[in-house]
Amino acid sequence: MDQQATFEFDQATAISLRSEADRFDIDLSPGWTVGPKPNGGYLLAVAGRAAGEALGGAGSDHRDAVAATVHFLAAPDAGPAEVHTDVLRTGRSASQVRATIVQGERRFVEATFTMGSLSQGPTPPWWTDRPMVDLAPLEECIPIPASRPGAAFEVPIMDRCDLRLDPACMGFAAGRPAGIGELKGWICLADHRPIDALALLFLADSLPPASFDLVQTGWVPTLSMTVHVRAFPMRGWLRIRQAVQVMDHDRFDEVCEIWDGTGRLVAQATQLAGIRLPPDAEPPAHP
Amino acid sequence: MDQQATFEFDQATAISLRSEADRFDIDLSPGWTVGPKPNGGYLLAVAGRAAGEALGGAGSDHRDAVAATVHFLAAPDAGPAEVHTDVLRTGRSASQVRATIVQGERRFVEATFTMGSLSQGPTPPWWTDRPMVDLAPLEECIPIPASRPGAAFEVPIMDRCDLRLDPACMGFAAGRPAGIGELKGWICLADHRPIDALALLFLADSLPPASFDLVQTGWVPTLSMTVHVRAFPMRGWLRIRQAVQVMDHDRFDEVCEIWDGTGRLVAQATQLAGIRLPPDAEPPAHP
Repeated sequence: MDQQATFEFDQATAISLRSEADRFDIDLSPGWTVGPKPNGGYLLAVAGRAAGEALGGAGSDHRDAVAATVHFLAAPDAGPAEVHTDVLRTGRSASQVRATIVQGERRFVEATFTMGSLSQGPTPPWWTDRPMVDLAPLEECIPIPASRPGAAFEVPIMDRCDLRLDPACMGFAAGRPAGIGELKGWICLADHRPIDALALLFLADSLPPASFDLVQTGWVPTLSMTVHVRAFPMRGWLRIRQAVQVMDHDRFDEVCEIWDGTGRLVAQATQLAGIRLPPDAEPPAHP
Repeated sequence: MDQQATFEFDQATAISLRSEADRFDIDLSPGWTVGPKPNGGYLLAVAGRAAGEALGGAGSDHRDAVAATVHFLAAPDAGPAEVHTDVLRTGRSASQVRATIVQGERRFVEATFTMGSLSQGPTPPWWTDRPMVDLAPLEECIPIPASRPGAAFEVPIMDRCDLRLDPACMGFAAGRPAGIGELKGWICLADHRPIDALALLFLADSLPPASFDLVQTGWVPTLSMTVHVRAFPMRGWLRIRQAVQVMDHDRFDEVCEIWDGTGRLVAQATQLAGIRLPPDAEPPAHP
C-alpha cells in the first residue's frame, strides 16, 4: 500500500497481483459509476494501472501511459473483476501492454497501452496551435452534482471529481442546449489528489457527453476511446473541453482536451460513441 | 478470390485462412512500404481485413471497421507474416476483434477493431462543425513521387496512391517549411480502386508526417494510431488534411481528416509519433 492509497482514486483503482504473474484482482467501485455502471474512464485507469504494474510498477522506466486505446465490449458491474495483462513488447524508449478487464468468464474492456515516461513538472510544448479553452472564472462556473432533480439516474463520479461547467454551456441541463456541441469547465479530483497519467485517463472521460449540447437523448455508450497523455500538469484546477466533431444518426465522435494552470495541454482524447437520435430531431443551426 | 482482386490494394492485403480458424497468412508487399518497411496504414488495413474475415467476411453484418486502434511494436519486413485474430465479442449493432501481425515468433502490430456497418452511399452527417479543407484546384497541386532527388529513401506507397499536395504546403520539400504544421491535398488510389473502409485505414496514414511542415528531422515512427471511419465516400478524388496539434521534443500528435467530393467527412485519424528534434531547432513563429 503506497502513500497515495489514502486518496479515493487510488483506493478505487487498487489492484492486487494473483498467483499468476499476469492477472490482477480489482474490486470495481460503485462510487465511480454513471448510473449503476462503472465509468469508462475509470475502467481505462484500472486497466492502465495493471499495465504499469505488469512492467514493474513505480520502478519501471515506462510507468506512464502515453497512448491508451480502449474498446468497450460491454459494461461490467461494480464488484470483483480481474485484469489480465500481456506485455506485448519491452523497448528502450517505450513498451506496450494489453490489459483486459474480465468479470466471470466474460471480457468487458479491451485496452492497449504504449507506456513511456513523462518528464516531471509542466514544460511548455515545443510548438502547438491548440489554444487553451476560454472559460468564465471558476467562481462563476456551476458545480455538477451527482444527483439532479428529474435526472433518470445518479452520476456518482460527480462526487469523485469536482466539475464546474461554464455557464455558457449549461443550457442542456434546462432542456435548452446551446447547439454548439461543446461542454467546458474547470475540473479536479474532489479530494485534491495530484493528477498523474492515470488520473488523466479518468478525467478525459469524466464529462457528460458533449452531444447533450446538441440534442437530448438517452444513454450514449462509448464504443472506442483513445487518450494521449502529453505531460504532468501543474497542481491545481485544470481546464477541460469536450466537443462533438461529426454526428450521424447512429454514431458520433467527440474530442476532449485538458490544460493545466500554465496553459499546457496535458491530455487529448477522442472517442466514438453510439447514439439514437429522436426521429424528428432537427440539427441546431450553427451560431 | 473476389472481383476486387485485380486491384493492387486487394492483392497486397489478400489473406488466406490457415488450418487454425483464427490465423491467416499474408505476404506483406514490398510495394506498400516507406523505405524498406511496410507503411503503418497498410499494416492496419491488413489487420482490418483479417478482423472482417474473422467475423465472416462479406456476408457479415459487421464487415466495416468503424473504429480501429493500433500500437506499432516494431516494423516488420516485407514478406510472409501471419495475422492472429481474436473475436472479442459479437453483438447486435457492433462486434469487436483483435488482430495481431506476427512475423517469425515476434508480434509487430497490435490492432483492435470495433466493426459495424456503414450505410451505402454518401449521406451528409446530421451535424458537424468540421469544415472541408480548402484546397487549390487539382490541376494546380503537385504529384508526390515515390523517388525524389536527394531523398534518403524511396516511398513506394506514393506509386500506390496518387497524392497531389497543395502548393501552399510544398515548402518542406525545398527545405522551407511553411511553419503551420499542415499538409493537405487531393488523394485517390493510383488504379482508381473504389474506396471502402479498409482503403480509408490505409489512406489515413499515407501522407508524409505533417511535422515536416515545422521542422526537418529523420524518421518519425508512429507509436499509436486511431481511425474512425464515418461513411463510404462518393467515387472520385478525396480531400485530405494532416496537421500537428502539439509537438514536444520527443513526441508529437497529428490528426488526419478525409472528405469526399460531396464535402462529407469520411474518416478521422489521430496518431502519436516519436520524434527527435535537432538540439538547436527553433519553433516556427505562428503566422
